[in-house]
Amino acid sequence: MNLIPEPTKERLLTLMRLLEKNSPAAGRAAGKTAVTSAELEALTGWSSQTIRKDISCLGGCLGDESRGSPGKLGSNAGYTAENLVPLIKRALGLDHPRRFCIAGLGRLGSAYLNVRFFEAGEFELCAGFDTNVNRVEILKSPAPLYPAYKMEEVIRRFSIEIALLCVPGDAAQAVGERLAAAGIRGILNFAPVALNLPPELAVRNVNVADELRALAMKINV
Amino acid sequence: MNLIPEPTKERLLTLMRLLEKNSPAAGRAAGKTAVTSAELEALTGWSSQTIRKDISCLGGCLGDESRGSPGKLGSNAGYTAENLVPLIKRALGLDHPRRFCIAGLGRLGSAYLNVRFFEAGEFELCAGFDTNVNRVEILKSPAPLYPAYKMEEVIRRFSIEIALLCVPGDAAQAVGERLAAAGIRGILNFAPVALNLPPELAVRNVNVADELRALAMKINV
Repeated sequence: MNLIPEPTKERLLTLMRLLEKNSPAAGRAAGKTAVTSAELEALTGWSSQTIRKDISCLGGCLGDESRGSPGKLGSNAGYTAENLVPLIKRALGLDHPRRFCIAGLGRLGSAYLNVRFFEAGEFELCAGFDTNVNRVEILKSPAPLYPAYKMEEVIRRFSIEIALLCVPGDAAQAVGERLAAAGIRGILNFAPVALNLPPELAVRNVNVADELRALAMKINV
Repeated sequence: MNLIPEPTKERLLTLMRLLEKNSPAAGRAAGKTAVTSAELEALTGWSSQTIRKDISCLGGCLGDESRGSPGKLGSNAGYTAENLVPLIKRALGLDHPRRFCIAGLGRLGSAYLNVRFFEAGEFELCAGFDTNVNRVEILKSPAPLYPAYKMEEVIRRFSIEIALLCVPGDAAQAVGERLAAAGIRGILNFAPVALNLPPELAVRNVNVADELRALAMKINV
């Protein structure tokens, strides 16, 4: 699946989200009516040629059992939201549960303890960590919470892959390094600092303060 | 200030953030030592030519009292973090307090009630709203909280410009429309849906679930 180009992956991700949430096709009876690439063009703004090419990549990423009906993927008869979403999920590696943890259980981190991301099975919260033992003991959580010194041990024991980094800015780099050393492969960084970590570790930044500034800049008179 | 091109604005915003937080220059004694465009190049990865051009835009946006020393902005002697940050803030319209509110005080919205965005004076939380009157009464908050039916009245009374939209997905479009009608000019949308609002209203989306999927996609084997 590494053969799918990055831009195609990004488009497939967006397409999947649109099909799941906003598409007229998703509202159809049982979703079984075909969606044509022209309809997907109207939905996404990308050319139907691009969409057909992106979707044709899915063919190359499927296991043998799916290769039996290659005609369906390339045909003009269209796709159905019902068959397209699972195909995309599989090609992007989103079809098996990914384990994540939350490092830092302050206001934001503890808020995310109880947010459910997507339907059951896509992401699984396995642990939360904080240096404040009191927080660890009193917070309500669907997953077990641990004092920060147990972080490495718990991440390894449960093969946790992803971490939401919600610690204060001045602790973020050090905690990021501990997560990396413990085997975490992707970090969603909420701390307002740029992390300097090994390149094989994927990092995405969510910085609400920056977003607020960008918004303020946009609405200037 | 509308004459600054959008890409330049985005770069100036990033540059300001780097100067404030991460730059070696920021750590210098009292920040009074000059920073050269070559140093800024190393910090940002943009060419020193781009940086000089971006910074030269600040000259055109300054008030008369600052025009007295135009040589400083274009010279090779460098800038100081101390003078550059206020100049950028001013050019981007970030030098006066912007009033914002939070619509929806569930887990995420109430977490943001107590997050301080930047130093005092840049953003001012003026109000929080929720349909659940119980929440409005018991939540701890540095700003007054109101039942949702008072939203329009409060936004107009305090001339609130920006809203953090933290309501559930199925309520987001309707609340977004009410915010627009009440005079809100920018929305930071945390709800997992695309908003369809008048184009003059600026919207930025913060979707943690999408970020999580993008991260999972990146770390596939």
